[in-house]
Amino acid sequence: MSSTKIFKGDIVFTTTPERFTLIENGFIVVVNGKVDNVYTVLPETYKNFQITDYSNKLIIPGMNDLHCHASQFKHLGMAMDKELIPWLNDYTFPEESRFKDTEYSKRIYGKFIKEIWKQGTTRIALFATVHKNSSMDLIELFINSGLGAFVGKVNMDTNCPPYICETLESSLEDTEEMIIKYKDRSSLVKPIITPRFVPSCSSELLKGLGELSIKYNVPVQSHLSENRNEIAWVKELFPALKYYGDVYNKFNLFGQTPTLMAHCSFSSDEEIALMKENNVMAVHCPSSNLNVGSGMMPIRKFLDNNIRLGFGSDISGGHTCSIFKTMVYAIQVSKLFWANSNKEISFLSNPEAFYIATKGGGSFFGKVGSFEKDYEFDALIIDDSNLNYANYTLEQRLERFIYVGDDRHILHRYVSGNLIEEPKGIA
Amino acid sequence: MSSTKIFKGDIVFTTTPERFTLIENGFIVVVNGKVDNVYTVLPETYKNFQITDYSNKLIIPGMNDLHCHASQFKHLGMAMDKELIPWLNDYTFPEESRFKDTEYSKRIYGKFIKEIWKQGTTRIALFATVHKNSSMDLIELFINSGLGAFVGKVNMDTNCPPYICETLESSLEDTEEMIIKYKDRSSLVKPIITPRFVPSCSSELLKGLGELSIKYNVPVQSHLSENRNEIAWVKELFPALKYYGDVYNKFNLFGQTPTLMAHCSFSSDEEIALMKENNVMAVHCPSSNLNVGSGMMPIRKFLDNNIRLGFGSDISGGHTCSIFKTMVYAIQVSKLFWANSNKEISFLSNPEAFYIATKGGGSFFGKVGSFEKDYEFDALIIDDSNLNYANYTLEQRLERFIYVGDDRHILHRYVSGNLIEEPKGIA
Repeated sequence: MSSTKIFKGDIVFTTTPERFTLIENGFIVVVNGKVDNVYTVLPETYKNFQITDYSNKLIIPGMNDLHCHASQFKHLGMAMDKELIPWLNDYTFPEESRFKDTEYSKRIYGKFIKEIWKQGTTRIALFATVHKNSSMDLIELFINSGLGAFVGKVNMDTNCPPYICETLESSLEDTEEMIIKYKDRSSLVKPIITPRFVPSCSSELLKGLGELSIKYNVPVQSHLSENRNEIAWVKELFPALKYYGDVYNKFNLFGQTPTLMAHCSFSSDEEIALMKENNVMAVHCPSSNLNVGSGMMPIRKFLDNNIRLGFGSDISGGHTCSIFKTMVYAIQVSKLFWANSNKEISFLSNPEAFYIATKGGGSFFGKVGSFEKDYEFDALIIDDSNLNYANYTLEQRLERFIYVGDDRHILHRYVSGNLIEEPKGIA
Repeated sequence: MSSTKIFKGDIVFTTTPERFTLIENGFIVVVNGKVDNVYTVLPETYKNFQITDYSNKLIIPGMNDLHCHASQFKHLGMAMDKELIPWLNDYTFPEESRFKDTEYSKRIYGKFIKEIWKQGTTRIALFATVHKNSSMDLIELFINSGLGAFVGKVNMDTNCPPYICETLESSLEDTEEMIIKYKDRSSLVKPIITPRFVPSCSSELLKGLGELSIKYNVPVQSHLSENRNEIAWVKELFPALKYYGDVYNKFNLFGQTPTLMAHCSFSSDEEIALMKENNVMAVHCPSSNLNVGSGMMPIRKFLDNNIRLGFGSDISGGHTCSIFKTMVYAIQVSKLFWANSNKEISFLSNPEAFYIATKGGGSFFGKVGSFEKDYEFDALIIDDSNLNYANYTLEQRLERFIYVGDDRHILHRYVSGNLIEEPKGIA
C-alpha cells in the first residue's frame, strides 16, 4: 500500500553547488517517504489529494551534520579559552569517562538530541565514547527520535588517560557486538566504526577495525590533519607511511567502506588525491576550527578537486549545533582565503554552502539532501514571516534565515516523509 | 528625593580586562540610577528596603555597540556574497536613499530599535543616513525607548551617487540644526558628528564638521583603515598627509572631542600612536570584517598599546546585532592571529572580551559598563536556568550564555536604573 503526501510552499534546494532551484508556491509530491516530483503547477492527477499547506513558508531539505561529539554536549560553549591539551585533559576526557554511567549518559544524550532536533538537523554522524552500553543507548534514543544517525562507539587503546583507555580486545569485541546488534535494526540509525584518531589507536586496533568494517560493510569516521602537531605526531608513530591518511588507508579505514574524515585543514595534495580516489568525504568544521585555533580547511581546494564535502558542528570544539550557523562560518572562513589570496581563491557562494549542508553531506546517508526524484523527504518548514517584512526574493529570504534566523523559525521537521515531533521525556 | 533600589543575584562584571569580579548571591545597591555599592552580605542599613530578587540569575552590565548603521537594518544577513562596491551601489546606497521618506524610516528604525533591545544592547553609537528629518526621528524613537544612543546624521558631499549626495552647505546646516536641537534634550540620547569616511567628504566639509564638533563640544565617529584599497584612496586624495587618521586629525575630527573610529584593521604604528595620544577609541567589528572579507583588526596590538576599545555590530556588514555574538567573533578572530603567530600573540581572554563589550565601550557614554561605585546601573538579567543543568561555576555559566545563549535568556534590561520595556507600537 503506497502513501502519497503533497506539500505546498516556497521550495528551495540545490541539485548542484552552482545554483539554487527555487519554486515559489510550488508542490512536492512524496510517495512512501520519497520525493516523487516537484511541480510549479500541481497536475490534475492529484486534484483529489489532501495538500499540506505551507504557503508563504520555506520548504528546504533538512540539515546534515557529519561530525559531532555527542558526549561533549555538556561542555558546549565552555572552556573556549583553554588550549587543546588542557582542554582534553581537564574537560573532555574526564567528561567522556562519565559515560560509563548509563543514567548520566541518557540524560546528556537526551538533551543533545533535543538540541539538534531544535536546530533542524535531521541526520547526523556521531562520536559517542568508548563505552559500549551508553553508545547503544544513544542508538536507541535516536531510533525513538525518528531522526537519522550514524553512531560510533569511540575506539582508543593507547595515548589516552587510563580511565578511558580500552584494551585492544575489549575495544574490538565491543565494537563487533554493537555492529551485529544494530547494523540491520533500523533504516535510519546505524553504527559506524570510529577510531578516535591515529595516535589513540594501536596498529593492531586499526587493523582490527579495518577488518570489521569490511566484514560487516560498516562505514568509518575519524579525524584527519586537523593541526600541524598532530600530523607530526602521526609521522613519528608511522614513519614509513607517506602522510596521515595513508595510515588509515593501510588499515582499510580510508574509503574501503564509506568514510568521513573531519577537518582536513592541512591535507597535502597527495592526501587529497587519495581522498578523491577512495571517495572519502571531507567534513568541514569551521566553528570548531576557529574556536580551537587549529587551522582552516581550504574548502575551495576540495571543491575544485571534486572531493565529497559535508559540514560538521564538531561539538564541543564547535559551539553551535546549528548547521545554518556552520554555513555562515564556512562562508566567512572561505573569505579569509579569498582576502589572503588577493581574491584569487573565490569564497563559498550561498548555493555552494547550502549544497554542502544538504545534498553534499546528505549523500553519506543515501539519497538525502535534495528534492530530486527518489530522494528521502527530509525537510524543514521555515516560517520566516517576521524576517520577511519587505519585498525580499525567495533567495534573499533563505539567506536572511540562514544568517539571522534561529530555531524559532523552524516550524516542522520531516525525515523520510515523517513529521518528527520534539523528543519527549527529557529533563 | 533619592531613590534606592536593591538587586539580588549572581553578579558578574569587570573592573579591568584581566579578570571577572564574581559575586554569587550578591546585592547591588543603586541610588538614583547609579551603583552605590556591591555587597556579598547586605548591610543592616538596608534591612527594611525592598529587594528585587533575581536569585539564580546572572546580573551583568548591559552591552554597548559602538558602531552600527541603523539604516541598513532591512539588509541584515543579505547580499553577503556581494563584493564591497556592488554591495554599496546595488544595496546600501539605494536603501539609504529611502530614508528621505520619514514614514519608511520610522518603520525600519522602529524594527531596528526593537531588535537591539531584544539582544541586550543598552547603549549604541549609530550611523543614520544623510537625511536630517529621519535622523532626528531616530533620536526621538530612542528617547522614547529609554535606551542610550549617539545618533549621527551621515555627512557626504563627494564620491557618492547623486541621489544621496549632499551639498557642502546643506550638510553643515543640517548637522548644526540637529546638534542645536538635540545636544541638551536628553541625558541618554545625543547627536554625534558623522562624516561617512574621508573619501566621501570634501576638505571643506571635513573642516566644517571639525569646527562644529569643537564649537558645540560634540563627539565624532567615522571609519578608519578598514581595507587596503580605501587607505590607498585616502592617500591619493590627501597626498600630503602621512596616514589615514592624519586627515581626520588635521580637521579636528580625531580626538579633539571624544571620537570613535571603526575597524582600524590596517592602522600603522604611527596611526595607533596618534589614537593613543588623542584618546581615540578603536571599534572592533569582527563579524563585519569576516563577512566583508576586508581585513582583521589585530586587537592585541591595541590592547598592548592601551588604546580605548569597544565592539561594533556594524550592521549590515555585520549580520548580528548581538554584542555577545560579537564577543565570540572577536575571540575567534584573535585566535587567527594567535595561530598565525605560532602562539606568540595571545588571543582574547573571556574577561578581556567582556571588558571591551561593557566597561571599555561603555566609557564612551560616561560611567557606563561596570558595577563600580557611581556607574550608571545599565544591566541585563540573564535567566540561564535551561543552560545551567550541571555543576557549572559562575564564570562557566557566563561563558555558556555568551556562546550558546540568545535573547530568550535575557529576562530584563535596565538603563540608568530604569527597567526598559519592549519598544511598543512597532509593526
